[in-house]
Amino acid sequence: MTWVDDANAPLLTDLYQLRMLQAYFEERLEASATFDLYVRHLPPRRNFLLACGLDDVLTFLERLRFSPEALSCLATLGQFSERFLDRLAELRFTGDVFAVLEGTPVFAGEPILEVVAPLPQAQLVETFITNQVHLQTVLASKAARIVCAAAGRDVVDFGLRRAHGSDAGMKSARAFFVAGVTATSNVLAAASYGIPAAGTMAHSYVQAHDDERAAFRSFVELYPDSVVLVDTYDTMSGVQKLIALSHELGPRFRVSGIRLDSGDLASLARAARAALDGNGLRAVKIFASGGLDEYSIADLMGEGAPIDGFGVGTRMGVSDDAPALDMVYKLVEYAGRGRTKLSPDKQVLPGRKQVVRQLRDGAAVGDVIGHCDEALDGRSLLVPVMRDGRRIDTEILAAARDRARREIAMLPASCTSLVVADPPYPVAISASLRRQQRRLSEPLSR
Amino acid sequence: MTWVDDANAPLLTDLYQLRMLQAYFEERLEASATFDLYVRHLPPRRNFLLACGLDDVLTFLERLRFSPEALSCLATLGQFSERFLDRLAELRFTGDVFAVLEGTPVFAGEPILEVVAPLPQAQLVETFITNQVHLQTVLASKAARIVCAAAGRDVVDFGLRRAHGSDAGMKSARAFFVAGVTATSNVLAAASYGIPAAGTMAHSYVQAHDDERAAFRSFVELYPDSVVLVDTYDTMSGVQKLIALSHELGPRFRVSGIRLDSGDLASLARAARAALDGNGLRAVKIFASGGLDEYSIADLMGEGAPIDGFGVGTRMGVSDDAPALDMVYKLVEYAGRGRTKLSPDKQVLPGRKQVVRQLRDGAAVGDVIGHCDEALDGRSLLVPVMRDGRRIDTEILAAARDRARREIAMLPASCTSLVVADPPYPVAISASLRRQQRRLSEPLSR
Repeated sequence: MTWVDDANAPLLTDLYQLRMLQAYFEERLEASATFDLYVRHLPPRRNFLLACGLDDVLTFLERLRFSPEALSCLATLGQFSERFLDRLAELRFTGDVFAVLEGTPVFAGEPILEVVAPLPQAQLVETFITNQVHLQTVLASKAARIVCAAAGRDVVDFGLRRAHGSDAGMKSARAFFVAGVTATSNVLAAASYGIPAAGTMAHSYVQAHDDERAAFRSFVELYPDSVVLVDTYDTMSGVQKLIALSHELGPRFRVSGIRLDSGDLASLARAARAALDGNGLRAVKIFASGGLDEYSIADLMGEGAPIDGFGVGTRMGVSDDAPALDMVYKLVEYAGRGRTKLSPDKQVLPGRKQVVRQLRDGAAVGDVIGHCDEALDGRSLLVPVMRDGRRIDTEILAAARDRARREIAMLPASCTSLVVADPPYPVAISASLRRQQRRLSEPLSR
Repeated sequence: MTWVDDANAPLLTDLYQLRMLQAYFEERLEASATFDLYVRHLPPRRNFLLACGLDDVLTFLERLRFSPEALSCLATLGQFSERFLDRLAELRFTGDVFAVLEGTPVFAGEPILEVVAPLPQAQLVETFITNQVHLQTVLASKAARIVCAAAGRDVVDFGLRRAHGSDAGMKSARAFFVAGVTATSNVLAAASYGIPAAGTMAHSYVQAHDDERAAFRSFVELYPDSVVLVDTYDTMSGVQKLIALSHELGPRFRVSGIRLDSGDLASLARAARAALDGNGLRAVKIFASGGLDEYSIADLMGEGAPIDGFGVGTRMGVSDDAPALDMVYKLVEYAGRGRTKLSPDKQVLPGRKQVVRQLRDGAAVGDVIGHCDEALDGRSLLVPVMRDGRRIDTEILAAARDRARREIAMLPASCTSLVVADPPYPVAISASLRRQQRRLSEPLSR
């Protein structure tokens, strides 16, 4: 099993990056380049994205260097000269990065990140940067919808087992927390990122006991204020067994909740609530899980199901309805000249940019994408985060989470609903940017 | 940035596993348990899955131990006793594993893997095992469809940048190779797994040059037999520039192919083929990429587009139409007694199992899931792969790839088509297994 780490991460790139790098060095194409990372189109049914992944990008750029092992490994491919490998040995990231901070809502076409660095450096890092910002933005964006749908109820991340591998398992917990998820089941992520850890019992615990009530009794003895899973055999008879246990234990009964994981969650929650309340167990909360997503949670909330919190796994863990974004990293300026591209549906706006968000009475009413040196009216979203290869500031995770809460609240209600916003949130391209694109395109299309 | 490695991987688990473990130790529930890993339902539009991920599971189990750092980290959660942490320090995986070998087609309900170990050990490893087998089976299954659709043409993995994180980037390259993909763009995966690496140039290379023909000339000087990307500005004018370069270079022109990455690929391929052939460049192949999946590839093949190979990224890299499987790891036996579960749509078949594949004239005609000690007619798919915590055999990657090719070829044509197989491939449950489930369920449903 190969683990990715600081020593081999520079090789986690596409072969063509290294082939182009060798060519850039040979041709002395080492002037300053600007690349924009952005999403070309929002997935169907999505009204906004939540930017995430910047912290890992900056760490990667700061630590980037080819170890002797990495260089020997490259040598075995037989495609690279010794002169090139020597250059790689010295390569460090010395550029600048401008970015939208984590937890900021973004829209199609808006640069989430701009890298300004000598062309070979800026080119090389495309794959890793895209891999991380793509993943974390996909996941934060999905979780933001689920948190909105839960309308203030707790959402707990149960996604680790079906997240796409170990890295996604870690990054998902972090991205979900930024988006407003309350806690994660993932122990390593909780410990690494300082996220609250949550978890109680699985069906296997109940099954391993010869009867369900004995299982509840044993678990509660060790964890008196735990949440108990009641649906292994039959939900309502599980609830009755828990009620019987409350009679047996009297004041020693301190179970904090039950978890429903199958069946018709709304009607089971209602029946369980009634049974618990009828037995003086009003303090026992009801948690629901099992294949949930923003739509089923919105339905449960709409029906007024008495559910206090949601455990959400697979559908959030892989962002099942939009597991990928059309996210690209495109050359927009080289050697002081704007660059474009004319492939159908894949045009590129040239030059370094700024994105401003225009507010009216504290609510976001529209964004404008312009040149970085234009006078644009509104709050700037792209800020310098790295200068000469050094991170300017380190943000704590809670700051990104606070920003997400604050900034999502400023979006129009049409954006945060589960229905496609019609009209979509307005994102304009400045007249000057359009003009420069036209000016550059004409000679190229001949 | 936290990388996952051997030292912290045991913490890449759900908190409830550790809470249950502490309870199991307290209650002395340490008898032998069997857990089955299987997929409850196939995703819509899928006719089979390709098992993958076993190698990483076995490595993980062999290396499993809680480091002093991992234990201190757990101690900070404040939920675990010193006695429990001392037990964890000694914990090793000492159990047996039976599994379907990598590259074997499997169907809903069939155990892909069975873990037989003392209950705490077998419970603890659920999250990591599921995380890895789920990911790799999702990806291998998607790639198998794409390889089938390409009908013998090369398929190259371009998915790294949109795979879900670094681990998925690595594992996807491996899973795709098992499924029959020819090469990967991922340098680290190619080097780690011995997979052919592929890659040429990106649009940014062309854009960084002031004109496209100069870009082609420079690249070809360094890499004479490269593939050249022709669609940065206009595909057919890119092809014309390449043809002009061939006239300029004469016999020194050795470009092996062109890549089309946008537009109507079928008609562009035809026009490019005609132009190349008309200029004596019959040896120059045509590769296509850009949002491809099994459906668009099948359409291109169906139209007879003169395309020699496909670069497939996002849709294969995240398995976009089925990014998750309903894969579960369920307790089926404990202390010598079969265990079941009655939650609606989530029933569990008790006891250790065997799956046999029945062949007629070398073709698979149906599978039967039975008890491991039943006399079942057919080839056994579950084989012992680990005994007492030690791997029995190490398989080279090429063996899994060969198996996949061979075994997929034995499936009925209805399974390997892109249309939903109707009727689906037959998977029967033995009468004896059904009887035991009924016998166990009756007292539990009271």
